[in-house]
Amino acid sequence: MSDITRRSFLTRTGTGIALAGLGATILQSTSARAEDKEGGGEKKFGFAFVGLGGFATKQLMPNIAASKHCRMAALVSGHPDKAKKLAEQYGINEKSIYNYDNYDSIKDNPDVDVIYIVLPNSMHKDFTIRGFKAGKHIMCEKPMAVSSKECQEMIDAGKAAGKKLQIGYRMQYEVHQLEAIRILRAKELGELKQITTDMGFRLMDQSAWRLHKDLSGGGSLMDIGIYGLNASRYLTGEEPTEVAATIFQPKNDPRFATVEEGCNWLLKFPSGVLCSNTTSYSYAGQTKWRAICTEGYIDCDPAISYQGVKARVSHHGKDQPMDIPELNQFATEMDVFADCIMNNKEPRSSGEEGLKDVRIMEAIYEAANTGKTIKLT
Amino acid sequence: MSDITRRSFLTRTGTGIALAGLGATILQSTSARAEDKEGGGEKKFGFAFVGLGGFATKQLMPNIAASKHCRMAALVSGHPDKAKKLAEQYGINEKSIYNYDNYDSIKDNPDVDVIYIVLPNSMHKDFTIRGFKAGKHIMCEKPMAVSSKECQEMIDAGKAAGKKLQIGYRMQYEVHQLEAIRILRAKELGELKQITTDMGFRLMDQSAWRLHKDLSGGGSLMDIGIYGLNASRYLTGEEPTEVAATIFQPKNDPRFATVEEGCNWLLKFPSGVLCSNTTSYSYAGQTKWRAICTEGYIDCDPAISYQGVKARVSHHGKDQPMDIPELNQFATEMDVFADCIMNNKEPRSSGEEGLKDVRIMEAIYEAANTGKTIKLT
Repeated sequence: MSDITRRSFLTRTGTGIALAGLGATILQSTSARAEDKEGGGEKKFGFAFVGLGGFATKQLMPNIAASKHCRMAALVSGHPDKAKKLAEQYGINEKSIYNYDNYDSIKDNPDVDVIYIVLPNSMHKDFTIRGFKAGKHIMCEKPMAVSSKECQEMIDAGKAAGKKLQIGYRMQYEVHQLEAIRILRAKELGELKQITTDMGFRLMDQSAWRLHKDLSGGGSLMDIGIYGLNASRYLTGEEPTEVAATIFQPKNDPRFATVEEGCNWLLKFPSGVLCSNTTSYSYAGQTKWRAICTEGYIDCDPAISYQGVKARVSHHGKDQPMDIPELNQFATEMDVFADCIMNNKEPRSSGEEGLKDVRIMEAIYEAANTGKTIKLT
Repeated sequence: MSDITRRSFLTRTGTGIALAGLGATILQSTSARAEDKEGGGEKKFGFAFVGLGGFATKQLMPNIAASKHCRMAALVSGHPDKAKKLAEQYGINEKSIYNYDNYDSIKDNPDVDVIYIVLPNSMHKDFTIRGFKAGKHIMCEKPMAVSSKECQEMIDAGKAAGKKLQIGYRMQYEVHQLEAIRILRAKELGELKQITTDMGFRLMDQSAWRLHKDLSGGGSLMDIGIYGLNASRYLTGEEPTEVAATIFQPKNDPRFATVEEGCNWLLKFPSGVLCSNTTSYSYAGQTKWRAICTEGYIDCDPAISYQGVKARVSHHGKDQPMDIPELNQFATEMDVFADCIMNNKEPRSSGEEGLKDVRIMEAIYEAANTGKTIKLT
């Protein structure tokens, strides 16, 4: 990356302009620019995708082309046929296809700058650590891992390697969320008092890895509830001090033989903001949050869809939509990571950020299983 | 009431037609009719209002005229001037004005059939029991009392007197709630999985009796949160088996010297439905609930306003308003009580119903204060 200089980066893109206005405090400075020393076209970071499931193939791969500073460079998969087909589709050299055994040899591929881990949760740790050992920067999907211990090992490996780690919390870079954070911090609706979130969808495919605890680490909480947890933290800007929870795992439904169907949890924040979150694998599509203040509220519904996020702001009884042009969420989070690498900045959705959510989720499970409110320190 | 025969009652009114269609299971049979033996005008039950605060004077009194079978007959107040003025306004004989000392002599007033207790919560028990001893039927505002022990004493007193007791849960007779219950019981949106409720408003008047625990028994939970609790129970049709809770009572705000500002609680129901409720005295006006099912959801917002309750039903992603003509909520609940008296039926919002909520609220406070999930039996 030595050929990338620190000049205007995101601000040159439409993306950058909107983000700079909305999320200056989140994205910090975005004033770097990626260019070849030659002054010609901009250098793009080569991404290797590890895991070729629906999220990688239907969301990440089609959208990386919309990024300013990222491009597909390699594929890592246990399915050679699938990988070969995708490589052809996206013009990737066959030499840049890896399997899980020879994955470590990616260290010898100078075309790969970043490895994006899109595997089942229980595989995040190993493939992240192996990726760091291969000298690459890592993006890893949420939840970061299946335990806080694993998260810490991943963070430590990144530090030892001197490489960056960003967790795939795309909502931390989504424009409606950023505008909501701005409104709440500016107290434009008075004091924030409550965050409520409901995140769920209906998962009927019994073979899905998400329903197998050895792969997922947990049920709806780990997979989709985490969005509500993370939103509670970024909307308040605080860390919770205690958690109470209830959980439901039906005995007669084979889908939920090893993981919970649904979970509700309460958080308490130092300022006195309370928070109530629900999640389920049996909701008709439902991703929403509401931030209730003394003089109004913000409603975000749908809150975490890949496109078409909508929010409304109500102030003193007057209700209006939050009218902001959408950005490509996937391109944005990848470009933000590129910015962090180029300019040696710590990603907002860092490993430490991912670890915080996993720690709290451990406390949620503990609270639900013990029937005790868990104090967080 | 011997001059009232059992013929069509509510069904003769516009009210009754709608209610019969929507809430047959709730209102049970509404096929009684109130008529004088002479066959002329219908007899109306004489109501004595005890407590002349804003709710009684601005809501109950103006709306009783819209009822079919109820009318104002007496006033009981600690403020003689206020009572006199209202008596003049509503054409009530001066002899039918009572104070808290001579209240018991209301037993000698044949014009009074029902006493409606609209006093601070801590006074409900005494005035209910005294009212029963005076041989009258009792309507009492929610929360029924400040402890489950008091509730039980009120129920026992009603039984001893052979008189009816109805708690003022007007939402149990409100048309959008009834239609929602019908949809959920019929499983028109699939299986019910979650109820979320947010009930609050901003209470700034430090002198309000609601902010004094000796009068109110508790804060936002007792006053407005109870609507969410009650909705969780009537929407599921089940009784919760456990409760977890967090509470917030700021140390630096004199309004909350004795009661909580806000409270969040979770309920678990036998069928596996989970429930998440929030309440606060610092919300910009916020009364909503959402019932989330496997194939859709119902949103009710505002959910408990005196007029203008709105609900939307979303099924397989298709969203439409619940289009039902509104009824006068106050007239309806009073007429329903008249029906119960005439036809010797137990009110749906009975003393036992009021007791259930108070018991659960005691468990909510206990859960919040001990940090333990409380099992309910």
